[in-house]
Amino acid sequence: MTRGALKMVTIGGGSSYTPELIEGYIKRQAQLPIKEIWLVDIPDGEKKLKITGAMAKRMVKAAGLDWEVHLTLDRREALKDADFVSTQFRVGLLEARVKDERIPGSYGMLGQETNGAGGIFKAFRTVPVILDIVKDMKELCPNAWLINFTNPSGMITEAIRTWGKWDRAIGLCNVPVMAMMNEPATIGKTLDELTYKFAGIDHFHWHRVWDNTGREVTMAIIDKIYDGSDAGLPKNIFDVKFFREQLKQMKMIPCGYHRYYYREQEMLDHSLEEFKGIGTRAQQVMRIEHELFTLYQDPKLDYKPKQLAERGGAHYSDAACEAIASIYNDKRTHMVVSTMNHGAIPDLPSDHVVEVSARVGATGAIPLAFGNFQPAERGWLQLMKNMELVIDEAAVTGDYGLALQAFMMNPLIPSGQKAKDLLDEMLVANKRYLPQFATKIAELEAAGVKVHDHVAATIDEHIGEI
Amino acid sequence: MTRGALKMVTIGGGSSYTPELIEGYIKRQAQLPIKEIWLVDIPDGEKKLKITGAMAKRMVKAAGLDWEVHLTLDRREALKDADFVSTQFRVGLLEARVKDERIPGSYGMLGQETNGAGGIFKAFRTVPVILDIVKDMKELCPNAWLINFTNPSGMITEAIRTWGKWDRAIGLCNVPVMAMMNEPATIGKTLDELTYKFAGIDHFHWHRVWDNTGREVTMAIIDKIYDGSDAGLPKNIFDVKFFREQLKQMKMIPCGYHRYYYREQEMLDHSLEEFKGIGTRAQQVMRIEHELFTLYQDPKLDYKPKQLAERGGAHYSDAACEAIASIYNDKRTHMVVSTMNHGAIPDLPSDHVVEVSARVGATGAIPLAFGNFQPAERGWLQLMKNMELVIDEAAVTGDYGLALQAFMMNPLIPSGQKAKDLLDEMLVANKRYLPQFATKIAELEAAGVKVHDHVAATIDEHIGEI
Amino acid sequence: MTRGALKMVTIGGGSSYTPELIEGYIKRQAQLPIKEIWLVDIPDGEKKLKITGAMAKRMVKAAGLDWEVHLTLDRREALKDADFVSTQFRVGLLEARVKDERIPGSYGMLGQETNGAGGIFKAFRTVPVILDIVKDMKELCPNAWLINFTNPSGMITEAIRTWGKWDRAIGLCNVPVMAMMNEPATIGKTLDELTYKFAGIDHFHWHRVWDNTGREVTMAIIDKIYDGSDAGLPKNIFDVKFFREQLKQMKMIPCGYHRYYYREQEMLDHSLEEFKGIGTRAQQVMRIEHELFTLYQDPKLDYKPKQLAERGGAHYSDAACEAIASIYNDKRTHMVVSTMNHGAIPDLPSDHVVEVSARVGATGAIPLAFGNFQPAERGWLQLMKNMELVIDEAAVTGDYGLALQAFMMNPLIPSGQKAKDLLDEMLVANKRYLPQFATKIAELEAAGVKVHDHVAATIDEHIGEI
Amino acid sequence: MTRGALKMVTIGGGSSYTPELIEGYIKRQAQLPIKEIWLVDIPDGEKKLKITGAMAKRMVKAAGLDWEVHLTLDRREALKDADFVSTQFRVGLLEARVKDERIPGSYGMLGQETNGAGGIFKAFRTVPVILDIVKDMKELCPNAWLINFTNPSGMITEAIRTWGKWDRAIGLCNVPVMAMMNEPATIGKTLDELTYKFAGIDHFHWHRVWDNTGREVTMAIIDKIYDGSDAGLPKNIFDVKFFREQLKQMKMIPCGYHRYYYREQEMLDHSLEEFKGIGTRAQQVMRIEHELFTLYQDPKLDYKPKQLAERGGAHYSDAACEAIASIYNDKRTHMVVSTMNHGAIPDLPSDHVVEVSARVGATGAIPLAFGNFQPAERGWLQLMKNMELVIDEAAVTGDYGLALQAFMMNPLIPSGQKAKDLLDEMLVANKRYLPQFATKIAELEAAGVKVHDHVAATIDEHIGEI
Repeated sequence: MTRGALKMVTIGGGSSYTPELIEGYIKRQAQLPIKEIWLVDIPDGEKKLKITGAMAKRMVKAAGLDWEVHLTLDRREALKDADFVSTQFRVGLLEARVKDERIPGSYGMLGQETNGAGGIFKAFRTVPVILDIVKDMKELCPNAWLINFTNPSGMITEAIRTWGKWDRAIGLCNVPVMAMMNEPATIGKTLDELTYKFAGIDHFHWHRVWDNTGREVTMAIIDKIYDGSDAGLPKNIFDVKFFREQLKQMKMIPCGYHRYYYREQEMLDHSLEEFKGIGTRAQQVMRIEHELFTLYQDPKLDYKPKQLAERGGAHYSDAACEAIASIYNDKRTHMVVSTMNHGAIPDLPSDHVVEVSARVGATGAIPLAFGNFQPAERGWLQLMKNMELVIDEAAVTGDYGLALQAFMMNPLIPSGQKAKDLLDEMLVANKRYLPQFATKIAELEAAGVKVHDHVAATIDEHIGEI
Repeated sequence: MTRGALKMVTIGGGSSYTPELIEGYIKRQAQLPIKEIWLVDIPDGEKKLKITGAMAKRMVKAAGLDWEVHLTLDRREALKDADFVSTQFRVGLLEARVKDERIPGSYGMLGQETNGAGGIFKAFRTVPVILDIVKDMKELCPNAWLINFTNPSGMITEAIRTWGKWDRAIGLCNVPVMAMMNEPATIGKTLDELTYKFAGIDHFHWHRVWDNTGREVTMAIIDKIYDGSDAGLPKNIFDVKFFREQLKQMKMIPCGYHRYYYREQEMLDHSLEEFKGIGTRAQQVMRIEHELFTLYQDPKLDYKPKQLAERGGAHYSDAACEAIASIYNDKRTHMVVSTMNHGAIPDLPSDHVVEVSARVGATGAIPLAFGNFQPAERGWLQLMKNMELVIDEAAVTGDYGLALQAFMMNPLIPSGQKAKDLLDEMLVANKRYLPQFATKIAELEAAGVKVHDHVAATIDEHIGEI
Repeated sequence: MTRGALKMVTIGGGSSYTPELIEGYIKRQAQLPIKEIWLVDIPDGEKKLKITGAMAKRMVKAAGLDWEVHLTLDRREALKDADFVSTQFRVGLLEARVKDERIPGSYGMLGQETNGAGGIFKAFRTVPVILDIVKDMKELCPNAWLINFTNPSGMITEAIRTWGKWDRAIGLCNVPVMAMMNEPATIGKTLDELTYKFAGIDHFHWHRVWDNTGREVTMAIIDKIYDGSDAGLPKNIFDVKFFREQLKQMKMIPCGYHRYYYREQEMLDHSLEEFKGIGTRAQQVMRIEHELFTLYQDPKLDYKPKQLAERGGAHYSDAACEAIASIYNDKRTHMVVSTMNHGAIPDLPSDHVVEVSARVGATGAIPLAFGNFQPAERGWLQLMKNMELVIDEAAVTGDYGLALQAFMMNPLIPSGQKAKDLLDEMLVANKRYLPQFATKIAELEAAGVKVHDHVAATIDEHIGEI
Repeated sequence: MTRGALKMVTIGGGSSYTPELIEGYIKRQAQLPIKEIWLVDIPDGEKKLKITGAMAKRMVKAAGLDWEVHLTLDRREALKDADFVSTQFRVGLLEARVKDERIPGSYGMLGQETNGAGGIFKAFRTVPVILDIVKDMKELCPNAWLINFTNPSGMITEAIRTWGKWDRAIGLCNVPVMAMMNEPATIGKTLDELTYKFAGIDHFHWHRVWDNTGREVTMAIIDKIYDGSDAGLPKNIFDVKFFREQLKQMKMIPCGYHRYYYREQEMLDHSLEEFKGIGTRAQQVMRIEHELFTLYQDPKLDYKPKQLAERGGAHYSDAACEAIASIYNDKRTHMVVSTMNHGAIPDLPSDHVVEVSARVGATGAIPLAFGNFQPAERGWLQLMKNMELVIDEAAVTGDYGLALQAFMMNPLIPSGQKAKDLLDEMLVANKRYLPQFATKIAELEAAGVKVHDHVAATIDEHIGEI
């Protein structure tokens, strides 16, 4: 790695999160001797890239820094000799997310970005692209670190490590960040007074907490959460409570996404209501994004607008900056990241990716050993991790049987003919982004599988001009 | 163990399966030097016990055997110095099964004897009783073998081994028996020409098959099954097909009960149709039982009537006799049984019970090592086995939080408030058979939880006179 | 596999064991429809091959069989379309074994064929050859079974499975055969009345035994063994007793080779006495072999002479015939073989080779699950299995560091400079058979490492004319 | 735990290490609000306790602190409401160590404090005492932390956790401390510029090192060590080099004690030379101790004299103070400690003690996940950890068979009759401290087992007056 004069690259630079990322760098200017920031995007994203790029330049300038901000559609030019590469791209843009949410919704099933059928398809679209990036990195910047916060972050990191054979990678998630940001106050503490231990996989982890006398305060936080202060829930998750009796038996705090699994019925009902009413989350996000990009175009705006916090992914980019600063400065910070298990969770294979409390420093992330889970959580976790492995393998190989297995395993997709029909329609609907499934998709189209009109209609209606 | 002059005890002797058991003994008269057969039941079952007992005596006599057949309500008298104890009792009789099926049905959920909420409650009711039997056996017949075919057979065997600390036990299931009975012919083979390897847990296992040249014929059988000859499906399972593409990826044959997990939607729809129409399986069984007991009362009937085959549990009793004969004569027969894993399935803990191909002989069952599963089946299996552990622990401790965890884990119970309401109603409905949950049930009743009328009504309507 | 008209191939056909093999086939003529027997050897072994080949022909003829016996130096011609390939070759002939025994002896260390430095070098010489055979088999007889009884049988089988990626292989050992042949009588039983469970690795396994009432008789046999009847010890192992108190704690019967590890001092002393006195085992074997080949040359001898039983490997060939007959006829025989663990010994990786009780039939060997070991045996076994993996990897890669690691791990080689000197001298002494170590050997020779005279002298003295 | 006004207890307060401990507290006076220091010893140690106690008081006074220093022979009085308990006692005093070293030496075997027969007997003597202390702590100070640096530290910590069921315990070792103190300079770095990852068990661990750019520098340090600067070797270990080729293959740095296993021959030779010449280590230590206690008696000495550094255990006490300060202040320091594995080393059971890099804070030690070892080190480690389990179980149960198993497993004790004779003589020689083996010892004495004169003689000669 270069010492001094860092070259930072962001794939998906046209994302609305870019201002948070730039703000994160600026906050850490004393820790990060940046020389160049490269924002990369694809032709479809060029318009947005120009907006975020201009804004980034204004922010850097306002901070009085001499960092170069480069905008490019040429990923390989950007990657050449990079020190840190962060990924925040979205294959298929928000339109793909609209499909991930609305097509399942039209089958009466949950439509969600990283859970259920939507999460599976997000992985199917993203895995081939990330493996392509890894291939480029091996050639162009073999010493760089890859900080992934493209969702589904755990599965993408698994693909990077297992299929891409690239070890200098860390996957991030804002869910633990938000829990640690919000929970301490509920029991009258600050974060640095508490010891957090997280373990699980991305969007499916639990944590326990102790205070600085070594006393466990997990149940105290649960008591507060149960009483309504539900700390740290990302904006995109509907706020139904966990069952108190279940949490008391669990003696751990589940993550917000566990709602989909512990309160499946309510989350589904809520999702279907949104589907029928105000639109799914992607559609809401489109409106927020439209607003954000309108703001970003303001040539006087040179700081991250507070509206960005309404995006579900808030704090992701800041976490990425912190991971980068921790690696570069060997800070040995406690962060919750997706990385190789290495035994930290003995109930899962040691050579696959988990999301776990880790010490992040010059060597990357070293997981803190968590020890064995109790049977209930162990069973859930083993199901979900194995499902991730099935999804990644299907995403790499384009094997339809594996895709079907993933659909049947997924606890949020009731198995059966409707599930298979949903799989087929989603394959056809995502045709452009799924080269690995091309043969099967052609077969499905020949057999008459179609994408239903209401989906397309919905998309048209909501994609505004930027 | 006694050599010669065997004392055989059957708990739940009033069961309609008793004639199959007696037939099984008679068929193996050359292998089993029986002196006494003790049929035990509880006062509520006395009427049936008298009928099956009389029939058993006729069968023995017709076979020209001098075996003594004893009927008793005193379990301890029967267990004293027993050699083999088999269990086929049903705590709460068929009325309890009606509740297991109809209460979930009334919530729009699957009502099934060994899967979903019904299976969990069957375990809750049965585990305390089996542990009581084990306690008696330790005192009264410490060298006896316990052959369990009371369902849910896997969880009951797990309870016997893990909580009862009783090693001389084997759990049986007729599902593998039926597969091995029916599949070979579909590919023009006989059973003894094929090598079967089963692995999983009770009612949730897979198998692979090879012919006598060592060639795997699993896919050949799948091809036949897919084409409609669905071999070996017990009478109580609705016949929806597995997805061919899924089976091709799996390269193993799932068991019939996998339908509930791979075709959840269709199985649920079918269950709800039955719920609304012809009555659930328990209600059908009540009718069959009524017929059977009417037949059994015929003083001329001295052989197993063919109508018994319509019961879902056909071949269970014969399997029990075969297990007994294999142990007694050290036959080293291949049987598929619930027994300690001991590593045979490396993806599950080695000190818990699995259902697996085993060599059954004088030392009991020695599992054949199966090796690792692929991720999809591994994930399913780990979820389900851990759920079994949660259920058993809840059944032993009466911990409501664990019961709730089991409900939330169960793939056939959509988690959420309705699931919790269902749990509560079922606790109250099973009050008489759940002493371990007494405190919680009192609490629920105080809070106004009630069993809805339609259930009771249904039961009244269907319980005939015997 | 061919049905009928079997082509049997034996690599190392010039071995003195060949008559036992032929006898084994003849005994099983009803089970094995043999058409051709091919005995293969290398030019150095041609003289012996002609002798054993002629004898084999006489034996077949005397049995009134029309089997063709072919002798060849062309391995590929023999392998073409083979059904069963058995391997009993010895790379470097007995001269190599003399070195394996005498060079360590000259360092004051144990010289033994399959243990200590000698065993490691036997693996170093043999692994490249067996992998070459596997390569030929993939091309010339992809459906054949490979029955290995070339020592060190476990490590060779591991190499075949792990490095050769050839699954249709079984490794054999006569040690369990002899235990099962001799022990039953010590407690007044016959073998078929007992259940044996072996587990461990080749030449380092333990077993437990039960009678046909399910009662464990392991301690009863130990009592007999301890009292002096030491059943089943191969001819090549010095008869020092195990410590009774150790066996009582172990509650398992160790194999004869465990003497080297449980009575290291006495076995070393005995080995050094032989080294100084009557000559090491290889030298004794040379004399026995000389006698045997003299006998075999008798044109009237057409049956296996009883003198063959004095060879340590007696019963190996018969075990090979039994394995072949069990596979061909799907006999599902209990045999103790080296095969993939698949979880049978949960304390070792499931994807490596162990030696274990197995059911041998059409699909090869299916291990019987043994369950976890107690700490003492678990520690030993994990050390030894890992050492095997190190040896095999060194044998394949020619990595000197790994060879050194293997020497330092080996419990029978006191680590230190003398061990390293021994390694170096043995490398040079085995130069002709270790192409994988060629570079290192050249380096050692350049640095002046020499093979000491006494070794060569000894060899000259003992190699007789055949 | 008390906040402020800490009560610190040290069992074995009469140890010559006490001044280092007191110095450690004084150095950390800003971090540790100590109120009372209790030094506890047994009547046999009272003389020494008075000396170290007086010295401790002078040191505290010289530091201008108002801490109370209490001396007592009443352990329970001291433990009452303790906050931190550290253990540095030596059951049987140095005389026992003399036996641990000289009796094996008289059999031509290694005599060493924590390795070979000596280490096993140190565990046998110490385990019952530590379990007694734990029993008292459960009653008298259930919230206290137990910081053990009584050797063999790993086995003692294992006993505390596994047999004592006491979780608030950390075991310490100075070996990693010294490595981290000495190695960085060899490659021109400071400790805080390096990331260390240790894993293994006490006195049998390896480590890898990275610099603050994430580059691994393990081999660079190996190169320096190999070239002669052998950093961090405790005074009690003879300085023979590791084999360079072995280290290069290993790609990890073994600990100093690995010399006993990787250079067994040289270490044994050296030990026997000392045995015959200048006396074993214990005898040298006696002289050093004699000098130290002479110094300590100087009423003007109020600081730790530099001669203490010559004791092999230097830095142990400082490490204990650092662990205490880290727990009390939730410092989350990187320390290498004996604690529950929890998966950090996936090759060992997750519910046993390992020695591993950990983050030490308010909740105790959280291990950093290390991941799987390569086969050579894995085999060694599994052997050694299992041997520890055997030793601890023998120490608790007094089972002679287990003691014998431990002796036969130990790589530094050639198995056989001499090993058994050694075991027997050591049992008798340690009679006073081995109540758990009383029956067996009586049996041995009855059978004529004697402690040979030379041992007693040697002891008499070297124990000076204090």
